[in-house]
Amino acid sequence: MTGTKPQHAPQIYFPVVDDVLHVGGIPLPRLAQRVGRTPFYAIDRALCSARVASLRAILPPQVALHYSIKANPMPALVQHMAGLVDGLDVASGSELKIALDTGIDPARISFAGPAKLEGELTQAIAAGACLNIESQHELDNAARIGDLLGIAPRVALRINPEFELKSSGMRMGGGAKPFGIDAEQAPDVLRQAAALGVDFEGFHIYSGSQSLRLDAIIESQSRSIELAIQLAGESPLAVRQLNIGGGLGIPYFPGEQRLDPAPMGAHLAAWLPRLAEALPQARLALEMGRYLVGEAGVYVARVIDRKVSRGQVFLVLDGGMHHHLAASGNLGQVIRKNYPVAIGNRMNAQNDAPDSGPASATGPLCTPLDILAERMELAHARVGDLVVVFQSGAYGASASPAGFLGHPAALEVLV
Amino acid sequence: MTGTKPQHAPQIYFPVVDDVLHVGGIPLPRLAQRVGRTPFYAIDRALCSARVASLRAILPPQVALHYSIKANPMPALVQHMAGLVDGLDVASGSELKIALDTGIDPARISFAGPAKLEGELTQAIAAGACLNIESQHELDNAARIGDLLGIAPRVALRINPEFELKSSGMRMGGGAKPFGIDAEQAPDVLRQAAALGVDFEGFHIYSGSQSLRLDAIIESQSRSIELAIQLAGESPLAVRQLNIGGGLGIPYFPGEQRLDPAPMGAHLAAWLPRLAEALPQARLALEMGRYLVGEAGVYVARVIDRKVSRGQVFLVLDGGMHHHLAASGNLGQVIRKNYPVAIGNRMNAQNDAPDSGPASATGPLCTPLDILAERMELAHARVGDLVVVFQSGAYGASASPAGFLGHPAALEVLV
Repeated sequence: MTGTKPQHAPQIYFPVVDDVLHVGGIPLPRLAQRVGRTPFYAIDRALCSARVASLRAILPPQVALHYSIKANPMPALVQHMAGLVDGLDVASGSELKIALDTGIDPARISFAGPAKLEGELTQAIAAGACLNIESQHELDNAARIGDLLGIAPRVALRINPEFELKSSGMRMGGGAKPFGIDAEQAPDVLRQAAALGVDFEGFHIYSGSQSLRLDAIIESQSRSIELAIQLAGESPLAVRQLNIGGGLGIPYFPGEQRLDPAPMGAHLAAWLPRLAEALPQARLALEMGRYLVGEAGVYVARVIDRKVSRGQVFLVLDGGMHHHLAASGNLGQVIRKNYPVAIGNRMNAQNDAPDSGPASATGPLCTPLDILAERMELAHARVGDLVVVFQSGAYGASASPAGFLGHPAALEVLV
Repeated sequence: MTGTKPQHAPQIYFPVVDDVLHVGGIPLPRLAQRVGRTPFYAIDRALCSARVASLRAILPPQVALHYSIKANPMPALVQHMAGLVDGLDVASGSELKIALDTGIDPARISFAGPAKLEGELTQAIAAGACLNIESQHELDNAARIGDLLGIAPRVALRINPEFELKSSGMRMGGGAKPFGIDAEQAPDVLRQAAALGVDFEGFHIYSGSQSLRLDAIIESQSRSIELAIQLAGESPLAVRQLNIGGGLGIPYFPGEQRLDPAPMGAHLAAWLPRLAEALPQARLALEMGRYLVGEAGVYVARVIDRKVSRGQVFLVLDGGMHHHLAASGNLGQVIRKNYPVAIGNRMNAQNDAPDSGPASATGPLCTPLDILAERMELAHARVGDLVVVFQSGAYGASASPAGFLGHPAALEVLV
């Protein structure tokens, strides 16, 4: 075997019974029958609840936890999350609609996005959601629309800090960025906000995401809180909310390990007294998407053909990159690596067939980009078997080119 | 200026009048009004016709030219192309529907794809389209469904050659591949096809795409024809069609040059006598997607905000990677490079503002992946201006994650 090669973090959330993966307590072949066709995404609601509970257990009760819908905007999932978290964060008018449809208090919705349209600003102000303001220009637009509607817009300033979350998969802060207001420009914009009479909520400081280094996350949290305290000292408006984002990653690729967030809870608890002193009205909030739902979901596709081409085994699936761009390696990755993949209805079948060995799982598209697994050690699969891609609860269907080559969209179920 | 840096190939197809780009003969701001909103794709039908005509002019009249719908399946465009080419090639049941809707003779449609579903095979056989068979397993399925329908399926064998198109953007042949039947397995499959009584069309040999080296394309065409002649010698069935794909690329990135296909025409003409001798019933066909429509289309988005962050100018657009994944650098590129981009309503405005200099064009998504232009020399743009991405007629809207973050889809117009 491949003992010295980096391995995927073990799959610890979905039980295997009699060689069959269970999702939402249901054997995978039964789930596929129940869904009606492959391919599909299945999100396990109990795992989402458990992830939120585990975070609540290590976080001080004063710290709010928000779900960032963009990670997975499936309405049934957002409805489930709305009952678990303190706020929903949206990134478009369409996501705002999904959030409002859950019945959550609009005061617990915030809307970030660097190019909010006139109609989206109007939606958010009319609904009473908080706008995370990305620029002076957007602040002016919000105030103008607020005047038209006769509503003082609720706004927070999204700040582009001078630092970034180190070793993060996605750097959202530091240096020149299209996101938010450069920290050094914020005092001017705060004075403008006061003059315009908007309903000021506070700050949104987001320095990166998908980090697997808790020390880096903790450091960026400290710097975000310090920055907020500094900006608040120059603000004519009181800070009621301080959203410092999330940043916690999940393991996707061989060699990556799950992080233990417990020290983050202790670290934030240690900050609270100073925060209460400096910003007495402020509630600290963490915003997370991927970390809350990413490990709770799988993508499932069926083997349509099994081919041996020049000694290599290809499992040709009815699903692929058009449903799961990230797993194909085409969503920001520089070098393609495999997500954790398994044969869900025969998890540990012996590779005793004559053409056994590493197998690749490829999709129905006529492009060599359509790969879900490249030369992986998989159980011996046959036509009709179910290939499972783990770590697929976030940035899956919604982040993929569903229309590419005109194949049917993936179904999505919450179980 | 940047005289020594590699430059984009000059834009020679869309005229600029009074500093304004014209698409389909219409000034861009007028076109945007006519479309109704931004962002949108606009394909210039006259440019598509001209490209087909220029190829016809250099190709021997015996060589058929097919349009591969997957490059751009917009129905109005497919309808237009159906009137210009000799065949339509589809890659899914949905693309087959679009092709049939044009009214083209189904005998001139072929269907390739490595994971054709039972329903898709049925569709194609019922319609009388030709199946490009990807494996023995698929051949068996097609024959079985043909028996059920009482129709002998029209089939061609898709061959995975031992060679590949050198220096191509997408390698589709050579080595172990999920596409087609390995050339060395083809004689066995041909005997099976004869035994199964299918209606045999010939071969589909596709070695790669998006090559800008005509010598490599010509070499792979020779090898494809040689391979077909060799396989035909071992075939109990006569070859009526030989589709050798396309491979011709278009220039996307700085330093890339348009190729001159004229020598390819002479090269194929030189092959025709030998082909007529070896395969007297066979018509040679070229299949192209990107090369026919890629340079005929632009993507247009509007500047919603103009920000200067730490000395860098960002044009924040209402469109981005969710509409144009390839231009964002996330469709198979290893290192992100800029597509050719311009400010369509002020193509040559002086960069005389105090904050002038290279500008980046970014989209509305809350992710640093959402970039359409990175530090490019652009005319000085203002809020409301129209940013144009050239070379966007192929693999645009349909190859992009339209649902990502819930922003509206791009419109598509043929003008």
